[in-house]
Amino acid sequence: MKKYLIAMAAATAAGGALAQSSVTLFGVVDASVVYTRGSGNGSAHKTQLGNSGNMFSRLGFRGTEDLGGGYSANFWLEMGLQNDSGTGFPSNSNNQASGNGTPGVLSFNRRSTVSLAGPFGEVRLGRDYVPAFWNTAIFDPFGTGGGIGANQIYFSGLGGLVAPTGTRASNSVGYFLPASLGGFYGQVMYAMGENDSNSVLPGTQVSNKRDGQHTGARFGYQSGGLNVAIATGRTRYAAGDLRVTNLGASYTFDAALMNLKLTSELYKESKGSTDAKGVLIGFQLPIGPGEIKASYARYKLEPLNAVLEPTTSKLALGYVHNLSKRTAVYGTIARISNKNGATQALAGAITRPNRASSGVEFGMRHMF
Amino acid sequence: MKKYLIAMAAATAAGGALAQSSVTLFGVVDASVVYTRGSGNGSAHKTQLGNSGNMFSRLGFRGTEDLGGGYSANFWLEMGLQNDSGTGFPSNSNNQASGNGTPGVLSFNRRSTVSLAGPFGEVRLGRDYVPAFWNTAIFDPFGTGGGIGANQIYFSGLGGLVAPTGTRASNSVGYFLPASLGGFYGQVMYAMGENDSNSVLPGTQVSNKRDGQHTGARFGYQSGGLNVAIATGRTRYAAGDLRVTNLGASYTFDAALMNLKLTSELYKESKGSTDAKGVLIGFQLPIGPGEIKASYARYKLEPLNAVLEPTTSKLALGYVHNLSKRTAVYGTIARISNKNGATQALAGAITRPNRASSGVEFGMRHMF
Amino acid sequence: MKKYLIAMAAATAAGGALAQSSVTLFGVVDASVVYTRGSGNGSAHKTQLGNSGNMFSRLGFRGTEDLGGGYSANFWLEMGLQNDSGTGFPSNSNNQASGNGTPGVLSFNRRSTVSLAGPFGEVRLGRDYVPAFWNTAIFDPFGTGGGIGANQIYFSGLGGLVAPTGTRASNSVGYFLPASLGGFYGQVMYAMGENDSNSVLPGTQVSNKRDGQHTGARFGYQSGGLNVAIATGRTRYAAGDLRVTNLGASYTFDAALMNLKLTSELYKESKGSTDAKGVLIGFQLPIGPGEIKASYARYKLEPLNAVLEPTTSKLALGYVHNLSKRTAVYGTIARISNKNGATQALAGAITRPNRASSGVEFGMRHMF
Repeated sequence: MKKYLIAMAAATAAGGALAQSSVTLFGVVDASVVYTRGSGNGSAHKTQLGNSGNMFSRLGFRGTEDLGGGYSANFWLEMGLQNDSGTGFPSNSNNQASGNGTPGVLSFNRRSTVSLAGPFGEVRLGRDYVPAFWNTAIFDPFGTGGGIGANQIYFSGLGGLVAPTGTRASNSVGYFLPASLGGFYGQVMYAMGENDSNSVLPGTQVSNKRDGQHTGARFGYQSGGLNVAIATGRTRYAAGDLRVTNLGASYTFDAALMNLKLTSELYKESKGSTDAKGVLIGFQLPIGPGEIKASYARYKLEPLNAVLEPTTSKLALGYVHNLSKRTAVYGTIARISNKNGATQALAGAITRPNRASSGVEFGMRHMF
Repeated sequence: MKKYLIAMAAATAAGGALAQSSVTLFGVVDASVVYTRGSGNGSAHKTQLGNSGNMFSRLGFRGTEDLGGGYSANFWLEMGLQNDSGTGFPSNSNNQASGNGTPGVLSFNRRSTVSLAGPFGEVRLGRDYVPAFWNTAIFDPFGTGGGIGANQIYFSGLGGLVAPTGTRASNSVGYFLPASLGGFYGQVMYAMGENDSNSVLPGTQVSNKRDGQHTGARFGYQSGGLNVAIATGRTRYAAGDLRVTNLGASYTFDAALMNLKLTSELYKESKGSTDAKGVLIGFQLPIGPGEIKASYARYKLEPLNAVLEPTTSKLALGYVHNLSKRTAVYGTIARISNKNGATQALAGAITRPNRASSGVEFGMRHMF
Repeated sequence: MKKYLIAMAAATAAGGALAQSSVTLFGVVDASVVYTRGSGNGSAHKTQLGNSGNMFSRLGFRGTEDLGGGYSANFWLEMGLQNDSGTGFPSNSNNQASGNGTPGVLSFNRRSTVSLAGPFGEVRLGRDYVPAFWNTAIFDPFGTGGGIGANQIYFSGLGGLVAPTGTRASNSVGYFLPASLGGFYGQVMYAMGENDSNSVLPGTQVSNKRDGQHTGARFGYQSGGLNVAIATGRTRYAAGDLRVTNLGASYTFDAALMNLKLTSELYKESKGSTDAKGVLIGFQLPIGPGEIKASYARYKLEPLNAVLEPTTSKLALGYVHNLSKRTAVYGTIARISNKNGATQALAGAITRPNRASSGVEFGMRHMF
């Protein structure tokens, strides 16, 4: 995503000159008309104005200050937008369900960090993405936008992506490797649930002082057309830890193969003793000023003693037409299939167990 | 209102040059001391710090990108401010009462849109003003500010202005005629309530799948000193549709007549089978760096079988003294009269049925 | 704090040229790792990511317009940030407990004003700091940041600092003396509770129409190394007025004494007929690019008929290492002691009556 520097002149409340510096105002506003439907008795369809079908809508403020010697101080404040109605998304204060904010309020839920960067890498404090989120986002041709294309079938199972620490964690300390490692990259995160040492699960004597404590790591290698990364994360809960592990890889061919990009991800999550597995394959193919993309994903829940595992699969096909580097119009179609009792549907629709849900979306995305 | 461009230099996270572009930070901060009172037994008076007495307070971010060939991509994010206390206004997510947000929270309630404009006109997606709101705002000399001058007596009846879709609608698709039609202008809007096809009124079997669906249109003509426009809007509710229709006209005389501007509006609304009617006349008269303005409005509720229709009328007189193009101080006096059982009062006051309410307001408005 | 002007080019929606003007985007993002503990049976400790350990985190928009002749119009919108989780702070709409907003929401709670300034001084309307807050902030070496250094033991008593009008008041009209008075400075404030004339305490017939009405004043003198100021404030409540009076003084020695700064404050508050007293002494000592600072504070609650007055004292020692004028890393240790039944603890910890609480904090602060 492009960013635009706000040109700044130095001004001081306390006097004195000032070194070069920048603050950037940036964002995305993406809206689309979406129709989704289910099938079977009791199914429901809906037409709505969606947002974030191509990229998640946002408004942010970020800046960097050159401290000399290769060091810099940085801040990043980014709020998610539901621009179809002018609302936002609450953040979560303690990485536990009890810390969820009021739906629809504005917050800097997407990222809220201050960091010190240098030759050693970067130490980042605040609310940030958990490491294990990135593979699910980067290796999905549709990213993790809010539209019907992105792989939301992972979202409806054990909560690996929608739990308080599924995508981001508050109260985190993160460390990122420097960029100068010959293609190797990596990060680790430790985030606190901030319960005091006397805290117990409501109505019990069971200590939950570590609830909401998240540890995660991601390491990868990028060179030429190849990008591969492995990540894992664990959030402690007295009622059963949440663990996510995934492996993503992509390869972008050269012009002889039309710059085709193939992507894939293997995904595993568990909540207490219940496991689930996912897999995604996809491609992105540039066509003139546009791009065709498609993905196939599958998600299988594995209850301990079940013979039949509820399984959902999803197929998505999209075309993005770039009007400029910042602005695009797009269309997407998607279909979700269920078996063994699964009931997943595209957002807005309701479907019967073992039945399908399908949808179509047309939208416009503008970055600034 | 004036806007200030944030000068921007191109910066890229992904590399590459950038065409000219702009993001604008804009707003209004308007505060006033307001005294209002009612009359009769049980009446109440109040002194308060109001906001928006001259123009509605706001903070916004908007931008445009030139796509070439007369086309542009645009975004607009604008939040309302209650700057007397540093709070804001919630938005509404579904054009129904169930979608009202928490009072006082900040949101981009005033406007939240992305649009594509070109020789064909403009297609706009998101939360925006409903077409029928504009005549009530533009042809009132006091606009629709939050002070005692603006014609709030329309607000207390059937809800044509204070219903979820009274002023703006979420989830909308709007189309605006191009500016090049020789003085003719117009717009249409379709906004979705986003209930799914199974939705029913709570506690009933009555389908409300179309609740919150709004359709509206406005067409006008402006030439020389004349401006005239007609508008209509309908919001579907299983409990009774809300309809608003109005006709506004203004004429600005030339210097020989001191640039006097006369304004008027006819207003009709209905909720289910109950009707109401309103009328407003007013003028604006520039006096050196200032302006005198006045309005008289009447609002009559028409219950089906009532002989006596509750009727409220309002008189407002104001003076605005411009300290610059952006900053003004102002004073307003207003009086509301009731008959046939009506009990409307200026904001903050309580009055007995058939009694009057009056008030005075002094404030300062600053635009940026 | 430094501020950066957003360079602006004049643009008009209505046409016309524009005089010079500025809008400033500014803020602080400050995060720290904090460990606090109590002592005794039932005590609790906690490790958390804090914010605002050195300066309160914030994001703001402010601007000034030169009106000529020494006059200017100004606005200031500033929101507090809990950047550890991307949330904010609610404001209060009526200077009473009933006007508290939802915890964690963003608002312009820190300041939301429009003002007219000139040779006469400044008249400011909106939400602003109460005069009596400033001495507690300015004469504490740790300011009133959210970390363990600042003197929060005043916060846990009668509410002089945490009541709705403890730090700021909404609906205020303030007047500030001009800067040209030979070192003398001063301000007065009147803020409204905005209850109507019929209002009563819930469940009673007791009028509370004046609840939330705040009056305050502060006057001081600054010359050479000396700064001294006295302030007072009263908020009316039918259940018992809240009064705060304080006197602060500081003296900064010259280079011969290493630019040492000594600070002190005497503090008195009462809620209804209950009194409390506080005292603080401290110093700040520049050491190369850094600064050592320390404070000792005591707070004594005086119930009407008690022989033993619950008393809390606090010692804090900190070092701030400036990486630039905008960025610093810092460390703080603090210890709270209680006697006569007092139970105050550092934020996050719980301690037994008459027992101590201690803590340590390491953080990074970045201004923009």
